[in-house]
Amino acid sequence: MTDPSSLLIALDLLGTFVFGLSGGTLAVRRGLDIVGVLTLAAAAALAGGMLRDSLLGATPAASLVDERYLLAAFGAGLVAFFFHPLLNRLRKPVMLFDALGLGLFAVTGCRKAMEFGLDPVASILLGVMTAVGGGAARDLLVAEVPRVLREEIYALAALVGAAIPVIGRQVGGPEPVLAVIGVVAAFILRVVSVQRGWSAPRSPWS
Amino acid sequence: MTDPSSLLIALDLLGTFVFGLSGGTLAVRRGLDIVGVLTLAAAAALAGGMLRDSLLGATPAASLVDERYLLAAFGAGLVAFFFHPLLNRLRKPVMLFDALGLGLFAVTGCRKAMEFGLDPVASILLGVMTAVGGGAARDLLVAEVPRVLREEIYALAALVGAAIPVIGRQVGGPEPVLAVIGVVAAFILRVVSVQRGWSAPRSPWS
Amino acid sequence: MTDPSSLLIALDLLGTFVFGLSGGTLAVRRGLDIVGVLTLAAAAALAGGMLRDSLLGATPAASLVDERYLLAAFGAGLVAFFFHPLLNRLRKPVMLFDALGLGLFAVTGCRKAMEFGLDPVASILLGVMTAVGGGAARDLLVAEVPRVLREEIYALAALVGAAIPVIGRQVGGPEPVLAVIGVVAAFILRVVSVQRGWSAPRSPWS
Repeated sequence: MTDPSSLLIALDLLGTFVFGLSGGTLAVRRGLDIVGVLTLAAAAALAGGMLRDSLLGATPAASLVDERYLLAAFGAGLVAFFFHPLLNRLRKPVMLFDALGLGLFAVTGCRKAMEFGLDPVASILLGVMTAVGGGAARDLLVAEVPRVLREEIYALAALVGAAIPVIGRQVGGPEPVLAVIGVVAAFILRVVSVQRGWSAPRSPWS
Repeated sequence: MTDPSSLLIALDLLGTFVFGLSGGTLAVRRGLDIVGVLTLAAAAALAGGMLRDSLLGATPAASLVDERYLLAAFGAGLVAFFFHPLLNRLRKPVMLFDALGLGLFAVTGCRKAMEFGLDPVASILLGVMTAVGGGAARDLLVAEVPRVLREEIYALAALVGAAIPVIGRQVGGPEPVLAVIGVVAAFILRVVSVQRGWSAPRSPWS
Repeated sequence: MTDPSSLLIALDLLGTFVFGLSGGTLAVRRGLDIVGVLTLAAAAALAGGMLRDSLLGATPAASLVDERYLLAAFGAGLVAFFFHPLLNRLRKPVMLFDALGLGLFAVTGCRKAMEFGLDPVASILLGVMTAVGGGAARDLLVAEVPRVLREEIYALAALVGAAIPVIGRQVGGPEPVLAVIGVVAAFILRVVSVQRGWSAPRSPWS
């Protein structure tokens, strides 16, 4: 919205693109047609930000006002459709794109919430919801239990990503640097936790 | 909202009614009780428009302000509950009502987005989301993968329906005629594609 | 919002807490880790109110502005995580907490809708949506058909709870008393219907 938020928009567009790749790649793997691929790419790419904007009252939602969001979402769907084998060389492309999108949306969701005057804790929560919302929409549409419940360190990685800019702002750190650190921290925490099989504690009663 | 939009409201109410029939008929077929029938009718009938209005910031949502929407939704549920065999003579009633609702909501969603000043591409997207949203809510509630992903020409039919009024407005066509053409085109494309088993292209890699 | 609505907020916070217990208890039973327990608690506790506020345009949503909502939601998640056996002595804790939350949110959703100037029927509908929304989000996330469709007297209990303050206001009854009666009526109707196996009528054609 404001001028220094051009970094915010750039990160938000990148998050839209990589979540779109995660949705499109999952759709190709499930054998969906071109329309299904674009639909799942759009759901993964846009649902988190739309949820954020409806809850904030930042309407019409950013992805409806700024058409670069639609370009990013559908462009990602087309890339997944035509270049699936290339993406698949990454071995776990859905997970990797999802992890990057998770970090990007955690940071942008949280920063947009702060711009709207929300308190730190609510800003972190909205960052987490923005980050996990797209993936949850994607997974529910193909009738999977969403990653946020199935996988150990997922919401936690988003939480770390969203908390870094909030806490950093309290201590007066430089915002762009904090944003980038938040994205990288969430991404690394998520990817490493998948590779090492880390898990969060369970209830002693479960 | 404005005066010439009375056609828009009439089409929107009709869409609400036929989506309500699709939800109610599906609920009766699943053996749900009267409350379940009314719930599924309301979900199918109202979710698409509520999604549209939250994302536009057109709040309180139209279906909460204008009680004819509730009448249409719950009236459709009651019709499905009491006259199920009559509806069933249509052989594929859920599909037919769903196809008509798809066309109606694609057009009304898109036109409402244009009234709120959205760009053409964003207006088409919102039309598609309005059209597929109610059916997706209905299918998810009974734990089915939504039609928009399972069926070949579904989002595509909504896209064609939404694009006709947008493109027509650019070339200056008469709005009511364009609206009706959009509805009919989406309905026919959807129904014929089901009957002929048309499918959209799949990724060569899927 | 207004001053006499402090009772409304108290009931809303209590509803948030008990729905949080229902989500957290379900998560522990499914063997989810601490993050999954907090996520499911938050989804059950906050989704209904967030849906209500997006549809009303009461944004930013109450649970993002007033941090007591987050405390109630996550506090409930922690209680479920650490004291699961204690809650389990209630035999059917998810059902009981869910029934109480159902009554509380039916009343508060409906009263908030009336404050925003909605008509009686629309206010009742929004009360029901607020009440069933959190439980539906909770159940969908763990891939269950939501209670509102599976169980006989569920939406109906919410409807009774929401209708009491609306009808009472028409006849000029004292609002706090009507609110409490609505909550208690919905809770009792729901719990007794589960215990006695009451069911609503099915379509003769199902």
